[in-house]
Amino acid sequence: MVQAISWNGTDLVLIDQTRLPDDLHYRHITTVDGTFEAIQRLRVRGAPAIGITAAYGLYLAVRNDTFASPDDFFGALRRHIDYLSGARPTAVNLVWALEAIYARLTAEHADDVETLKKRLLDAAIALHDDDRRRCEAIGAAGAELVAPGAGILTHCNTGALATGGIGTAFGVIYHAHRNGKGIHVYADETRPVLQGARLTMFELEQAEIPATLICDNMAAALMQAGRVDMVVVGADRIAANGSAANKIGTYGVAVLARHHGIPFYVAAPLSTIDRRTATGADIPIENRDPEEVRSVFERCTITIPGADVWNPAFDVTPPELIDGIITEVGVLRAPYSDSIEQAFSELSSHNQ
Amino acid sequence: MVQAISWNGTDLVLIDQTRLPDDLHYRHITTVDGTFEAIQRLRVRGAPAIGITAAYGLYLAVRNDTFASPDDFFGALRRHIDYLSGARPTAVNLVWALEAIYARLTAEHADDVETLKKRLLDAAIALHDDDRRRCEAIGAAGAELVAPGAGILTHCNTGALATGGIGTAFGVIYHAHRNGKGIHVYADETRPVLQGARLTMFELEQAEIPATLICDNMAAALMQAGRVDMVVVGADRIAANGSAANKIGTYGVAVLARHHGIPFYVAAPLSTIDRRTATGADIPIENRDPEEVRSVFERCTITIPGADVWNPAFDVTPPELIDGIITEVGVLRAPYSDSIEQAFSELSSHNQ
Repeated sequence: MVQAISWNGTDLVLIDQTRLPDDLHYRHITTVDGTFEAIQRLRVRGAPAIGITAAYGLYLAVRNDTFASPDDFFGALRRHIDYLSGARPTAVNLVWALEAIYARLTAEHADDVETLKKRLLDAAIALHDDDRRRCEAIGAAGAELVAPGAGILTHCNTGALATGGIGTAFGVIYHAHRNGKGIHVYADETRPVLQGARLTMFELEQAEIPATLICDNMAAALMQAGRVDMVVVGADRIAANGSAANKIGTYGVAVLARHHGIPFYVAAPLSTIDRRTATGADIPIENRDPEEVRSVFERCTITIPGADVWNPAFDVTPPELIDGIITEVGVLRAPYSDSIEQAFSELSSHNQ
Repeated sequence: MVQAISWNGTDLVLIDQTRLPDDLHYRHITTVDGTFEAIQRLRVRGAPAIGITAAYGLYLAVRNDTFASPDDFFGALRRHIDYLSGARPTAVNLVWALEAIYARLTAEHADDVETLKKRLLDAAIALHDDDRRRCEAIGAAGAELVAPGAGILTHCNTGALATGGIGTAFGVIYHAHRNGKGIHVYADETRPVLQGARLTMFELEQAEIPATLICDNMAAALMQAGRVDMVVVGADRIAANGSAANKIGTYGVAVLARHHGIPFYVAAPLSTIDRRTATGADIPIENRDPEEVRSVFERCTITIPGADVWNPAFDVTPPELIDGIITEVGVLRAPYSDSIEQAFSELSSHNQ
């Protein structure tokens, strides 16, 4: 299985996902600006993956600088955190990862800056390791929901390229396949950036999971034909009431699934749940460059020059269309305000 | 307004729609094989337009041949009708146009083949003229359904490029705009062949109608945002019970419209209604080349080599999701079995 992100001891090494599947190119990142650019340009994407990337980026931001005191160091960290957090506004894991690391560093006393730098790198590596374990737990919990021989529809990419491990929704698919459930996966191509066609189909082939690519607008007819038994997708931010922001097109799939009586699941680590965001209406939605829609890969223009375009990167699925949120602590069910609160309180008592 | 199809006195002249919007190239067709190829390769598409094209193609098939008798001539016509009807299996207008011309020619006595050839060309030209008038009538009937300031979502292309006139669903849009309703159109890009992005956006710009392009998977979020007041699409075949086959993705839009309480209309001439097709399940659905999905314009590959693909060209929207069928004799309402029967009986008494 490919590894989207690795730390080679000195550099952050990312697969440049904009060049997949044609070209498996590893990009060495050594600066905070390089990290910001890689996140913004979607060289690395997927909520958990950009959290991990940003954590390493925070270390790259400070490792070569000198600081008069720990206070100076923390002041610089805050500025870099604000900067990196702006690379993509919707995915909460980005902010969550950076704030978690900041909180961890400030909680422990340290006199010298070099110790703090070392702890910062260790925290990034630990976050990466944690995500790997979370993906396994999500996959195991979700696989129990999969019926033998199920047709599973997924949207966008949620696998090894989107996370630090086997993936979120893809983790569920991977576990179900490995458990011998005999599943067949349908991957939405996921316009405009085509993460489904480019990345999910690539990962499904690598994992030798039977799969069929469809255009996004074929999902309804596929459901009507009785070929979809379950939908599982990832999330970029989940509000306290269970509303889930995910790649544009997810909400439509949820509506279609409900119309056809097909269960619709969101798979995400608890770090994707932002309890400070009350409802879906409070989730900021990133609008991206119209050229993403006007052309494919900036090479094939598909419309008239300067066509007016609407290009939100995400949409929000309301909790009433979600049959369960598959997390590393199990499957949360409606009412989500309660099940989310309970999951976090169990997590915090477990961590104490 | 562009003209997809014209007869210049000797040749059938088609805009090669596969080259739009980059390149407005006119292709001169002089043979039945050239006609078949143009229909199959989508150089000309849209249910009414391929009916008109096939009618001219039938004339091209026989004009230079010699026949021993009218019987020989009609025998050849039957073979050419069977051949041309196979170019695209779903659109009923293709078969309808050819059969209508055959019936017209056989109804009138003729001793010599040259007279029959002339009548055949006249019938093709008359069919073309009729379609122009039908589009105007559809546009006028549909425009009455449009509220001032409405946001109108459409799918695929149904305009001058798809018909012999101003279009079907596009005719409704065109009339509403010309009547000063202050509409805004949202065009689904319509993967895999991108007729919405390439053709509808081109025609909207030509007609100076305010318009925004979206990816197919954005329609749900656009509806959720309250920006769509009405959906209007075309059809390739309508069954006796009102089920409508149209470009893949239409059924999904219909489900989404119903979920959001937005009226969903199909605009089509009565020639699109095939009363010999009882229900949607009886409509043959054309499956097209997987390469259409694997790449954009055969130039930009978007997925792994040899990816398994599902590529139905059409889907079927059941009558219960259709709020009205806008025809040249007015807006048909459910139950469609009755309103369709009534429309045809009025038409036939009008024609007598």
